[in-house]
Amino acid sequence: MAPVAPRSGDAIFASVEHVNAELFTLTYGAIVRQLLTDLEEVEEVNKQLDQMGYNIGVRLIDEFLAKSNVSRCVDFKETADVIAKVGFKMFLGVGASVTNWNSDGTCCSIVLGDNPLVDFVELPDTCQGLYYCNILSGVVRGALEMVSSILFYYTYIIVLLLKCMWVFPNFGFCPCYKKMGIE
Amino acid sequence: MAPVAPRSGDAIFASVEHVNAELFTLTYGAIVRQLLTDLEEVEEVNKQLDQMGYNIGVRLIDEFLAKSNVSRCVDFKETADVIAKVGFKMFLGVGASVTNWNSDGTCCSIVLGDNPLVDFVELPDTCQGLYYCNILSGVVRGALEMVSSILFYYTYIIVLLLKCMWVFPNFGFCPCYKKMGIE
Repeated sequence: MAPVAPRSGDAIFASVEHVNAELFTLTYGAIVRQLLTDLEEVEEVNKQLDQMGYNIGVRLIDEFLAKSNVSRCVDFKETADVIAKVGFKMFLGVGASVTNWNSDGTCCSIVLGDNPLVDFVELPDTCQGLYYCNILSGVVRGALEMVSSILFYYTYIIVLLLKCMWVFPNFGFCPCYKKMGIE
Repeated sequence: MAPVAPRSGDAIFASVEHVNAELFTLTYGAIVRQLLTDLEEVEEVNKQLDQMGYNIGVRLIDEFLAKSNVSRCVDFKETADVIAKVGFKMFLGVGASVTNWNSDGTCCSIVLGDNPLVDFVELPDTCQGLYYCNILSGVVRGALEMVSSILFYYTYIIVLLLKCMWVFPNFGFCPCYKKMGIE
């Protein structure tokens, strides 16, 4: 039987169940606010958002694989493309592009054209250093760790968001994959 | 100029921006898990979920009024209908029904046919007493307090969810409206 062709992010997004994006935005804002109250330290909030995203990504990957028909990516470039063009579109309903590749192809930026997480968001000065959307980098990290499709040890992505004041920190996949013994 | 007719929940939901419902479900699950870790006491988690929902409802009502064309409700019965048939549909994408009215029309149940918040959710025995979806009652409370459209002092809604193991606690609108001096 011939392999099933991968579906586009638009097609998948159209076929799944939805909720109102504004409800999602405000719910996410409530999470960040809660973490700032409970943990007080911005650095701790960044870590916690990443960890929450990781836990989500570990589970979300099942839905991604079931709906997208995407098979194993041959290299990191293809992986980044799939994350940007299928993954973000399928879950957030917005497309992203991959840019800023470094010379050895181990680092790139994924740029969201429109980021629903930051609608209506205004951060006070006390939140300097907060990576407001850090949950997204955790989601990507968790999802990739589950599929273990990365071929590189020392590869990382810098995720930047257009229309977003907060830049994600670099995050390395290397330790995870090293630990898992993937080569 | 003739008043604009209220729009149906379906029509509004179709016209707003969306995100993937599974992403929302998992994000909400991450909130509850975080609160259980930070606050430890189930009762405190219930209160916090309600408070987070309240903060969301206070802001979400703007979107509701802007998109729905709903004007002032004449009585509590109409208010409950609008919450169930327009509000829930517009934000969660699922319809709800109003049942179990008491004899003096001050108490009813809003029943969601399908609740996206509880997909994939399994609670351990240590979570006895947790109102997993308590954020929803907070949203309704916050939204109603902003529009102050309730005519009753001693009215409350019990929100029940079909397909949901966790029943919302009764929540009284009375203190809010008393405080606001609404009659």
